[in-house]
Amino acid sequence: MNYRLKLMYDGTRYAGWQRQQNAQTIQGELERALSVITREAVSTIGVSRTDAGVHATSYTANVHLENPIDSYKLFRGANALLPADIRLIEAKPCDESFNARFDAVQKTYLYRIDTTPHGNVFYRNYAWHVPQALDLEKMQKAADCFLGSHDFSGFMAQGGSSKTFTRTIMDSSFTEEDGLLTYRITGNGFLYNMVRIIAGTLVWVGKGKIAPEDMPAIILSKDRTRAGMTAPAHGLTLLRAEYADEN
Amino acid sequence: MNYRLKLMYDGTRYAGWQRQQNAQTIQGELERALSVITREAVSTIGVSRTDAGVHATSYTANVHLENPIDSYKLFRGANALLPADIRLIEAKPCDESFNARFDAVQKTYLYRIDTTPHGNVFYRNYAWHVPQALDLEKMQKAADCFLGSHDFSGFMAQGGSSKTFTRTIMDSSFTEEDGLLTYRITGNGFLYNMVRIIAGTLVWVGKGKIAPEDMPAIILSKDRTRAGMTAPAHGLTLLRAEYADEN
Repeated sequence: MNYRLKLMYDGTRYAGWQRQQNAQTIQGELERALSVITREAVSTIGVSRTDAGVHATSYTANVHLENPIDSYKLFRGANALLPADIRLIEAKPCDESFNARFDAVQKTYLYRIDTTPHGNVFYRNYAWHVPQALDLEKMQKAADCFLGSHDFSGFMAQGGSSKTFTRTIMDSSFTEEDGLLTYRITGNGFLYNMVRIIAGTLVWVGKGKIAPEDMPAIILSKDRTRAGMTAPAHGLTLLRAEYADEN
Repeated sequence: MNYRLKLMYDGTRYAGWQRQQNAQTIQGELERALSVITREAVSTIGVSRTDAGVHATSYTANVHLENPIDSYKLFRGANALLPADIRLIEAKPCDESFNARFDAVQKTYLYRIDTTPHGNVFYRNYAWHVPQALDLEKMQKAADCFLGSHDFSGFMAQGGSSKTFTRTIMDSSFTEEDGLLTYRITGNGFLYNMVRIIAGTLVWVGKGKIAPEDMPAIILSKDRTRAGMTAPAHGLTLLRAEYADEN
């Protein structure tokens, strides 16, 4: 039986999603909990390999189990066994063919930037602290340039597994509240470190290091050295993934 | 020279505001940082003795220094020395007579309640997890009963230093977003543990253990045993204090 799982996690203490031999990871913790409950060796599939320090408010995964188990038992059991910074939000049986990684049709990430001079203690693990005035109007103008379909080779770190580099972005927008900038980006897929490189580039735009007018040429150049720095992982949160069957 | 300070802190790791010999406290950390910067033995006065685990987004304190120091130097120096979960938001010279504790004319607290079945990982240190449906309409009806001036002896824990028990409440209201209830209460003063006892009582109303219609009589009774439980400290945040000279 195939189960679709939704998780929420604070990535601060973890070396990312993916199972590792010698480090604590979200997938490792989840599989350990599920193994205890089901008494099976389980292998989960996650929507994305989030980096160390990256968070998720709704992360989709799936797991095939030999022996069917009541969804509510799975939910209660997992939350009793998982550490407090990882929660199972939902568990339900799904089509055998469902694959959390390959069936995702779009994903939305948030990147948070704390521009207060002192730094907000409640966002110290969830936002990049950039203690200076950023030109939000220019940042939004530059953010608009990512909308639509582009080859994002210039906004990709080495080490990813992607074979194609064109992605379509449907939302790329900022909101601001009490000095906290929240950048929201929705796309049909993302290259390795793409959101963090885009966020770092937009902060450079806000600082005046890159002009928003130059963004289209920077994207077209496919040259990583023309984009900005990779923004730190802890500012990034996977908000959610969408699947065709949910529409 | 007297300085007015505004602080923000995540109280999770601390044994509350007040300086203690053998425990880490906010006041202790602040005074240690200020002593290093000023090379004086400093003694701060804080608006409130927040309990262990209680947070603050804007906590007012004041400190008398022998030797005047530039406010910006104080701000920069303190934030360089303080741990990441305590930040100095603002420092400015003020009238010699200013006293952060006795001059406060009103304070506003937030009490957060997480009603999601799984618990929101991002609120695990900032909200009380009550994983069940609460009747928000009844809770608001009961919360209205606290408005105005009342003798709050029945909503006070032993151990406070108050000599009078009548307090005036100007705001007592709930908002709800994604399963997170935020209770906001503003008053001219609060007795020891008063907000946590009120929050615990309102949750009991939400569960149906106390009827909102009984609240006026429970207040009038001045009987602690008729109110609800003391809600846990970590759900409580001091939002800010107001002073007459700011109006």
